[in-house]
Parts: sequence; C-alpha cells; structure tokens
Amino acid sequence: MKGVGIGIIGLGNVGGGTLTILAENAAEIARKLGFPLRVAAVCSRHPQAKTLPAGLGPALVTSDWREVVAHPEVEIVAELVGGTSVAAEIVEAALRAGKSVVTANKELVALRGVELYHLAERHGAALAMEASVCGGIPIHAVLREGIAGDRIEALFGILNGTSNYILTEIEQRGAPFAEVLQEAQRLGYAEADPAADVDGWDARSKLALLASLAFGVRLEPSAIPTEGIRRVSPTDFEYARQLGCTIRLLCSARRAEGGLFVSVRPALLPLDTIMAGVRGAYNAVWVRGAFGADTFYYGRGAGPLPTGVAVVSDLMRVARGLRPAPAHRVPPFAASTLEPADPLPIGRQQRPWYLRFRIKDRPGIIRDLATILARQSISIDAVLQLPGQDKQNLPFVITLESSPEAAVRAALEEMQALDFMVEPPLAMPIERGI
Amino acid sequence: MKGVGIGIIGLGNVGGGTLTILAENAAEIARKLGFPLRVAAVCSRHPQAKTLPAGLGPALVTSDWREVVAHPEVEIVAELVGGTSVAAEIVEAALRAGKSVVTANKELVALRGVELYHLAERHGAALAMEASVCGGIPIHAVLREGIAGDRIEALFGILNGTSNYILTEIEQRGAPFAEVLQEAQRLGYAEADPAADVDGWDARSKLALLASLAFGVRLEPSAIPTEGIRRVSPTDFEYARQLGCTIRLLCSARRAEGGLFVSVRPALLPLDTIMAGVRGAYNAVWVRGAFGADTFYYGRGAGPLPTGVAVVSDLMRVARGLRPAPAHRVPPFAASTLEPADPLPIGRQQRPWYLRFRIKDRPGIIRDLATILARQSISIDAVLQLPGQDKQNLPFVITLESSPEAAVRAALEEMQALDFMVEPPLAMPIERGI
Repeated sequence: MKGVGIGIIGLGNVGGGTLTILAENAAEIARKLGFPLRVAAVCSRHPQAKTLPAGLGPALVTSDWREVVAHPEVEIVAELVGGTSVAAEIVEAALRAGKSVVTANKELVALRGVELYHLAERHGAALAMEASVCGGIPIHAVLREGIAGDRIEALFGILNGTSNYILTEIEQRGAPFAEVLQEAQRLGYAEADPAADVDGWDARSKLALLASLAFGVRLEPSAIPTEGIRRVSPTDFEYARQLGCTIRLLCSARRAEGGLFVSVRPALLPLDTIMAGVRGAYNAVWVRGAFGADTFYYGRGAGPLPTGVAVVSDLMRVARGLRPAPAHRVPPFAASTLEPADPLPIGRQQRPWYLRFRIKDRPGIIRDLATILARQSISIDAVLQLPGQDKQNLPFVITLESSPEAAVRAALEEMQALDFMVEPPLAMPIERGI
Repeated sequence: MKGVGIGIIGLGNVGGGTLTILAENAAEIARKLGFPLRVAAVCSRHPQAKTLPAGLGPALVTSDWREVVAHPEVEIVAELVGGTSVAAEIVEAALRAGKSVVTANKELVALRGVELYHLAERHGAALAMEASVCGGIPIHAVLREGIAGDRIEALFGILNGTSNYILTEIEQRGAPFAEVLQEAQRLGYAEADPAADVDGWDARSKLALLASLAFGVRLEPSAIPTEGIRRVSPTDFEYARQLGCTIRLLCSARRAEGGLFVSVRPALLPLDTIMAGVRGAYNAVWVRGAFGADTFYYGRGAGPLPTGVAVVSDLMRVARGLRPAPAHRVPPFAASTLEPADPLPIGRQQRPWYLRFRIKDRPGIIRDLATILARQSISIDAVLQLPGQDKQNLPFVITLESSPEAAVRAALEEMQALDFMVEPPLAMPIERGI
C-alpha cells in the first residue's frame, strides 16, 4: 500500500527524537501498519545546522513551515515547535488545508485544544495530541480505548518529573530543598527558573488535560488549587516515615457528589503503596474505575525519545485512519502478520543466580560445591547462611555471578547426587534490571 | 445515530459483569460513542435462573446460542462461555455470518487466535480479544496504540494473581507454601486443583499471548520453559531479603541476538523496584522499549467486573468501527463532547491531615493548638515529636482525623498568629486510599 507522507515542523529535542525513531524503527513501523511512514518534508529554523538521520530517504528541508504544510506529499503535519503563537498558526493552517495534525504541545492543547479539535472535525482532518501530556506513559490510549467501558471515579498522578526527582533526593539524602534544587539545576534536571516545576504549575496544566480525558469535562488549569514543594523539608520525610508514609507532589481529581474535587499539592502516601515507589524523574497515573477497580501506569516523565515514541504512535494511529484497512478490521496484534517464533534455548541465557540448598551439615560442603561450580567456570558471588538452623536440614544460599543457564543446570545436576543433599537445590535467577 | 446491537453468549462471572456494566454505565458509554450499545439478545444455559440487570431494555433471552448469532439486531457477538469447543463453534458461526466477535476466552485465543482472526478478515468482521489476557490491565491498547511507535526489547510480567497472592502471603506471614495454599483454597482464591496457577501454566499461556502482541511473533505456550512456585519457602524470602530482594513468579520475554529468551519461573527482584511492590492478587506488566524507555502497567488479575470492563471496552472499539465517525476523526478525548466543569470548592473535601509546626518551645503550646482545633470541631489523631531538636526552632507534627479542609484552613489561619510560631504551619493531606 502507498505510504503516508509526514511533515515534521520543529527539530528541537522532541523533533529530533521523532526523526530518530522514524528512521531507525522504519521497518517495524511499516510491518505494524502494512505501509511505511515517509518523511516528505522537514522544517527547522536553522536547517543548514541539522543533519537528518540516515535512512530517512530524500526529504524537503526548509526553514519555512508553510512549505511543509503545502507540500503535496505531506498528509500529516507534526507540530513540534512548542509555544502557542507560531504553533497555533501551523496547526490551523494544516487543518484548514485538510491535513491531519499531530502535536506534542501541552500549552497549545491546554489553551485551545477543544477549539482546534472542532476545526479539525470541520475540515475532515484528524488532530492527535496524545504526546502533549505524559509523553512517557500511554495514558491517552488507556483512557480512550483500554478502559473506555469503565466510569472513572478518581485519577491520581505524579505528573512532574523534576519535582519528583527533588522530593526523592530530599527523602534519600536528607538534604534541604534549596540544596537539592541547586544540584538539580547544575545537573540539568531543573530549569534556571524552576517555578513551573516546583510550584506545581506544570503538574496543574497536565492534570487539567488528564481530567478532561478521564471525566469528559473542560477544566481550566487556573481552577485547580495548587501548592508546590518548596516547603517540604527532610524533617517532614522523617515524620512521614514515622507515620508509614512518604511525600509526593500529588495531582488528584475525583468525583464527589455534585462535581469534582481537584488539587495539586504535596501529600503523604503510605510507603507500601505502588505510588510511593515512584522515585526520580518518573511520572505515574493511578486510575480508579467504578467497575474495573484500580489500574496504575508508570513511565518516564519526559525526554526526546519517550516523547518521540508518543508522537510516532500518534502518527501511526492517524495514518491508519488515512489508509483504512478493508472492512472494519480491528487488529488484535501489534503487527498485522505474525511470524512463528522458536524461542532461544534458555541454556544460553546469562543471569546472576540464587541457589538454595538444604543439606546435612558436615565439613567440606562449600569446597565440594565450589569445585563443581569452578569446573563449569561459574564464579561465586556470595555464600549466605542464616543463624540458628537445624544442622540435619540446613538451608543456605550461594549466589552466582552472571553465568549461562546451561552451565548452572549442569552444575545443579552434579550437585544433586552429592550425599549431603536433603533435597535438590532450588535455583532462581536474580533479575536486577527491572 | 442508530445504536449497535449486542448479543451476549454466556452468563457466568464475566458475562454477568459485562451485563452489569452495559446496564449501569449505559449513559457514559453512549456519551463516549455518540450512540448507545443495546443488548438485543442473551444466551444462558439456564435462562430461567437468571435475572437480567434493570435498565437493559427488552432482549431475547434464550438457551440456544444460534438464536443470538442469527438475531437480526445483533451486530456484535460477545462469546463469554469459555472452553474451546462450543466457544469455537460460536465464534466461527458469528464470523461466517459477518458478525463481529468479542471474546474473553484465553484458551481459545491461544489455541486458534490467528486462524480466527484471518476468518474474521475474510468475512469483513472484526475480532477483538483484548479481554482474554490480563483483563484488569489495558495492555493490548498500550501495545497496539499507546506505544506502537516503539520497538519492544523486553516484556516482564506478573501474570497470575493466585500465585502472586500465595507468594505475598508466604512473604508477609512466613507461613509455608502448603499452609498458605490451603488457606487460599478455603478463601476461594485458589482452585481445588491449583496446578494451573501454582505450576505456572496459566501464566505461561498469558505470556505466549503477550509476547505475540509485543514482538509480533507466534509463540507456542509449550515452547516456554516453565517452573512453578511450590518449592519457594519462607526461608527463601529471608535469604532474598538479605540480598535486598523479594521473590515473584516472573514471566519474561526479551530480545537477544538471534531470537527471544522466554521463561516463566520464580525469580528474585530488588525490593526497591516497582515490580517488587506488586502484592496480592494483582497483575503487572513491565515493558522495555528500544526508544521510549520503560513503562509499567498494573491492575486486578481477574474478576467479573475488571474483565467485564475489558469486554465492554472491546465492544465499544468494535462498535466505533461499525459506525465510523465522519472523516478520519481521531477523538483525543474519551468523550466526544466536553462539558465545562467547575471544580467543587476544595474546602468541602474531607481528608486526614498532617500539620507540621516550627515553634519556639514553651509550656502550653499543645493546649493552645488543641483549643483552636476543638473550636473547629477537628479531632487530633496523634502528636509526634522527634528527639534532640533545637528548642528555639522545634519541629513537631499533629495529625488530624478526617476533617473538612475549610475547617483545617480556618484553624491554620488562627494558629499562624500565635506568638510561638517560627513560620506558618505546613499542612498536607494524608492519602491512604491510593
């Protein structure tokens, strides 16, 4: 099938990430869609200073966004310049030309989203704005498709990565806010003017958009009571811990009789909840449905590539609408075709291991086990033994450095025959990378 | 717009949950779609023993599924009988009649999913099977839409709620597997024959389906190396804790050179990871993308209503295909119209509170504060004070029982004027319900 032509306007962080993914993931994208996405035109303020990623194919490169919108092959325009003035002009011009638009522009969507959406409708074009909020979490797809059948009762979020990073640092290092902020600025995690992040304004406009999605209402950001994190101190984390809690900048919106309660502010969360486990520059959303109970979503707060994934996923969704499949086909799989897969032999997999033995104790046991492991070229990481155990049925543990499973299996088989074994050893991989 | 007629076959747990949602959430569903879903026919083996929920409207009730498939108003058939023989007949008959099908049947999809999907395609019908795996987590929508632009590198899951419940109980109570299993059976959390859950077979077939979705491959469940949790003991949790880890039945599928490594087995996970925080009868999926970094999804493992939400969301998605909106419209919001919302005055919200003071210490401080709180009819929950603090700038905390925010604000204002206050009190709500 004929590919869909894409125009990218704005080659900053998100534009760059989007182009990288369109180039490097082109084959997978074409496989999932059944046709390719072709970048037909690109606009940058300094086109001569930009090198397009290899593999994109020939494209018009210009500093005039109107050329991209007018380009005959461009069917979808990705507006990635940010701000609300030029960006609005671009989106309007594209929609009026009947071209569909994908935008990652939170300010524009918050300010004029509904109006632009109706403009798109009038011109028979699509407007996709999923990348504009929580680019790192596919929360739009979840609310629009995944749990569409439910009625949302409440939505809680950690929606600002910078403030969550700062709170986590205060929590873990016991350093005061001002010191942590300074360091975050030095490391580039916080802006020179940190107000939007630490005073809750960024989180507030994201909550306004998510509440629109979840509850089907228009909510002005300025209507949301908002408090930042400047006053949260290490002492507060100490007291919170005494209460079994931690502190997060919590965005919340929940139905109550007669309307919604909404707020953005630091709040205490019990330490044993999933939400309290959100540390560093991550975002998370907790959704409570009237029927489907609670679901939780977690991912990177921002970044060129995570946001780029959201932009490309939007491009694909809009492109599917432009090249509708025969009939009202609803592909159940991410790919339209499925190749049969033979999994790799698990023996080749390398992992650190936990081996737990139960033995009748006698001298020389560690030596015997270590000899078998050495014969398989497996390195021991640690030997652990809890105190006060029954010597006739003594549990102890050997952990192994990363080793191929086949070698571990071979060693286990040999070990099993040893006279001091009460039962076959229990082996479990240690998954540190999740 | 004319509503879409639904036929429900099978009124067991999931069928019952689906009908409940279709009845009780009808207005919200119609608002999101722009047209209603009407239950036109229902099939149950014992139709006389079933009472349909109020508000469904008149529907054919029969014990013959063929009548549902043949019903002229039925455009989508929901196959909710389970098993693989009659269920297969139903799905095939419906698709051959050009009717779209929604199924929550994991066994059928695992066994014949691809074949049925091609049958649907040939007859111009849709086949939606999202409810069949992880009904409580909208992972299909995420993989198909939300992060479609990414290339999945690895997928990890906790996919069996029963075994996760058992492991959590062993972890928290230190009781042995056999005892915990017995109790889980008594409480109805585990089947009389627990093999499918505790030996990893159920998780294995779910992993096979998720890997198909994530990697675009066909994977036979029998090709996945699988080990259950029967041998995991309280001692293993003690050793794991020494290693900073806990133990979960981990399903994993990850790309490596030349193919996929897949396995289902107990594994050690670091305690400070989000995945380790998954406790009780919940499911979770961790996805690592080549571009978008890591995302994480969490929800109920099963249950009539969570699975019902997945079925109804599928019905809505298929129905949207049957009544396509004008042009290639991609609604950015869950609802097609947005009502303006005035949030409720936050003062009316009831919450337990954390108040942190910094004071110059002198006798009578608690009395003064307690007097103000009592005047606002606010009950104190606890007074906390860390040892060894500066008496001239003494931080201490009062927690309040659930109180309206307006009363708390009024009290805070009065407190602020007290001569011993070094700075205005810091107030944060305590969110125990997330």
